[in-house]
This record gives sequence, structure tokens and C-alpha cells, in this order.
Amino acid sequence: MKLARLGAAGQERPVAVDGGTTYDLVGLTADLDGAFLAADGIAKVRSALAAGALPELAGAQELRVGSPVARPGAVVCIGMNYAAHAAESGAAPPEVPIMFLKTPNTVAGPNDPVPIPRGSERTDWEVELGVVIGKRALYLGSPEESLAHVAGFVCGNDVSERQFQLADSGGQWSKGKCAPGFNPLGPWLVPADEVDHANLRLRSWVNGEPRQDSSTADMVFGVEHLVWHLSQYLALEPGDVIMTGTPQGVALSGKYPYLKAGDVVEIEIEGLGRQRQEFV
Amino acid sequence: MKLARLGAAGQERPVAVDGGTTYDLVGLTADLDGAFLAADGIAKVRSALAAGALPELAGAQELRVGSPVARPGAVVCIGMNYAAHAAESGAAPPEVPIMFLKTPNTVAGPNDPVPIPRGSERTDWEVELGVVIGKRALYLGSPEESLAHVAGFVCGNDVSERQFQLADSGGQWSKGKCAPGFNPLGPWLVPADEVDHANLRLRSWVNGEPRQDSSTADMVFGVEHLVWHLSQYLALEPGDVIMTGTPQGVALSGKYPYLKAGDVVEIEIEGLGRQRQEFV
Repeated sequence: MKLARLGAAGQERPVAVDGGTTYDLVGLTADLDGAFLAADGIAKVRSALAAGALPELAGAQELRVGSPVARPGAVVCIGMNYAAHAAESGAAPPEVPIMFLKTPNTVAGPNDPVPIPRGSERTDWEVELGVVIGKRALYLGSPEESLAHVAGFVCGNDVSERQFQLADSGGQWSKGKCAPGFNPLGPWLVPADEVDHANLRLRSWVNGEPRQDSSTADMVFGVEHLVWHLSQYLALEPGDVIMTGTPQGVALSGKYPYLKAGDVVEIEIEGLGRQRQEFV
Repeated sequence: MKLARLGAAGQERPVAVDGGTTYDLVGLTADLDGAFLAADGIAKVRSALAAGALPELAGAQELRVGSPVARPGAVVCIGMNYAAHAAESGAAPPEVPIMFLKTPNTVAGPNDPVPIPRGSERTDWEVELGVVIGKRALYLGSPEESLAHVAGFVCGNDVSERQFQLADSGGQWSKGKCAPGFNPLGPWLVPADEVDHANLRLRSWVNGEPRQDSSTADMVFGVEHLVWHLSQYLALEPGDVIMTGTPQGVALSGKYPYLKAGDVVEIEIEGLGRQRQEFV
């Protein structure tokens, strides 16, 4: 079972996708947000599905796909979390997770066009496993406690402008991470117990040519470690998203050109679906 | 006329304070948030006040003071924006504004106790002028356009944990900026046209002893420049808060001890009110 939000931006309808059929969740919840996740929403959807109590949504294929979580309270990002990406960025692998933030208004649907920011010459892609928090996490005692606070996983693109991030920033990366449309999420929110999050292939393409191709098994710090670690510094809340870092194969490496208008980026994570963005 | 939110955390009531009287705004708006500000809420409050249409709120003095804006979509911070503070932090004044983010769940009332994070030995204060956005700002043409996008100003404390921010962070400051309670705001939101934001004395004290004492006239980059500059990198939205940086006189300088449980921090900005936090 997968969760999604379908419809025009700002008017998305919550749905569940199961066995190729799309079910309408509006009778169960107004939206897929922190309140829904905190109130054990995923279990309620499963019960309703098992009871045959959810109506099918006709015409689902015609609808725009939105982010599968409503605007989060926070988008927490991890930098340099794949050793080979750290190397292509000119850095050693970090000794502790490096945390920075995107503004939550960067969140967009997985196939929405992404505007290249004005004046940008170094817009770049980053396929990343996104962790969606289901239960407030603060001062967790150990990484073993982490998964109980995770609702599920999403495919995400941590779109980045490298000139803004690294040169015009005084060293604080957020300036290159927050342009409108810079965080496509989805298509699906997959419940945590339906995916082997520590062993997922993640890939990206530009205009059909392969770029990144790695596995979440290559993370320097895995999901359980990240949630535990972050919870020592801030309160993670239901609906918050953690972007867990990107593997090697981005334009910053110097091996590939940066994005220009008309380029099409596709990203895919095994079991979490595929995105396709035209950069405009 | 000043705006405020009074009552228990999560149940604050919007009010206007004018000539020493507190007026109830619940008939006008459910909350002081981005939607209220975007819908010209301040002008509506002024009209209602002038028409004598607002009821007085009895017992206002007994109520807790909340943040004068509901939880923002983003808290955007500027680093090293006073030359003498940059110097005490061991840095040269920046050539461009340095932007980083706090998570919006750090926002608290001006007099709420602030928990010292677990394991913290370097919790520090930072009095700052906060700018509250009233109208979406993206790609402003010049700094002259900025004030039309500003609803008003607030007093703020950008509480910081220096070990987390500078040592445990890999250089990205947000890790030391996001603990619960780390962004007291208020007591008032003062409309932009009622305050000379470029010439406000701002001060802090610890246990009654003076610490910071400066003026917003000493900012490296003023409010108009900051709003314009940030709008080139992200969309500022109604209700968002920009923390404009802190002057010299914090513990990081080495001149004063860091905060310990039982310490009381007070901060004040001329015309924007005074805060008092016990650190616990």
C-alpha cells in the first residue's frame, strides 16, 4: 500500500494505491500531513482497505501528482552522506552528520516543472531517500528507537544551485537550496515496514543519460543513526522530512554540465517510484 | 498600535494593544498568521480600532504572552551582520549576507523558559531585530521595494548552542540553532510604519548584568537590503520571520560565561518591547 496526493497544487486529494487501484481517502482524512501521521493514519488506511471501506477514485490517472506529504514543518537535509559524493565535492567523508535546512515552501510534486533561478548557471540535481517522520522525536536514547518515529519513505530531489550554495553564501549552504520548486517529493509515501530502506538502488538521469546510480547501503550514516542523531539537536515532528544525502554523479563533480532550460531530470528510488522534471 | 497573542501555548488569542488597552481580535481573525497579514489584517485592525468596534479583553495582564506571530513557514537568519560581532566571533565582516535557517518549531513566547539542550555547555543569547513578512517577496527589483513586503517588526532572541553550531556541525550552523524554545519572539508585532527600524537600540542582560548594547544602525546590511537580497534566492512568504543578526556582547566572545540552569536572560529592542527568559 502506498499513499499519494493527487490534484492541482494546493488542492491535492489524499489517496491510497494498492494492487494497481487508487482509493479515495477524503472520507478518512482531509490531507496527508503531520496530524494524519501522528494519529496513526497509516494503520487506519490499512484497516479501511482490508474492510473494503474505501471508494475507488475514478480518473486518477488524469490528475497531477502532488508531494505525498503536505507542506512539512521542516525539511532537514544531510550533506556529504555518501563517501564518493564527498570525494567528488572535494571533501573527506564527514565524522558526524552534517545538517542543513531547506525552507518547506520548496516542496513540490514529483513531476512539476522546476524553475531555474534567475541568474543561475549552476543548477544541479540530487536524488535522495526522504524520511517522513510519523511521531515526535527528541532525545532518542539510541538508533534502535528511530524507526518507531518514521512513518515512511519518499523519493526526493534536493535541487541545488552551487554558485548560491558554495560561492555566494559565506559557506552556509541553505542559500543554494531554497529556490521555488527545489524539493520535488514523491510520487508515493511508502510505509516504513513495506520497504528495505537500507538497501535501495537510487538513480538519476538527465535527458535520458544516466548520472547517479548507487544504493542507500552506501550511506555514511544510515537512517536509524540520522534520526537518533538529529533528535539530540532538535525536535523532529510528524510530517517533517529528512533528506538523507545524495550519492556521486552530480554536475558539481565537473563530469557533467549543469542544467539548462529544457533539460529533463528523472530520478528513481527502488520501490519508491520515479520522478520527471523539466527545468524551465 | 501593537499586535500580540495571549494565552496558553497553542491556544493564544490575537489581541491589539493601543493606548494601554488590550482589545480582543477574535471577532476579526482566528490568529495572527500569514493569512491574516496577507489579507491586509493590520489595516483591518486599525479600521476596527478607529470605529470603536473592538471589545476590550478583560484580564489580559494575567495571560501568558505568546509569540506575536503564529508558527512561521520559515525562520530565515542572517549571520555576522554587525561588524563588531563578526570580529568577536573571529571573522571579518561578510561581503554578502550570510543566510541560514532555524526550524519554525523553535518559535516560543518572549518569557517562556528556555530548556538548555542535553549535554550543552555553550548555550548563548543573541538579541536580534526580527522582520515579519506581510506579502510574498520573490525577485524584488531593488531594496526600495522591500518595505512594501514587510508587515512589521519583533524583538527576537536567536538562542544558539556554540558547540553544536561550530564544532559538531561540519560548519553548517543550523545544528546549534534549532533546539526547542530557541527562538523567543515578542512581546509585540509592531507595524512597519510605526517604528524607525534602522535606528533602534537593542540590548541584552544576563542576571541583570548588561551584555549587548548596540543599534540597528550598526547593521552591515540593513533590512531593505536583506529582504531584497534574500528574495533573489527564495520566496519569502507572509508570516515568515527574518532574524537580522546580533551585535557584539555574546558569550562566544570569551568575555562572558555561557548560560547555565537558573540564569535569566533579558533582551529589549527600543519600541518593540522586552523579553525575560529563565534558562532551565
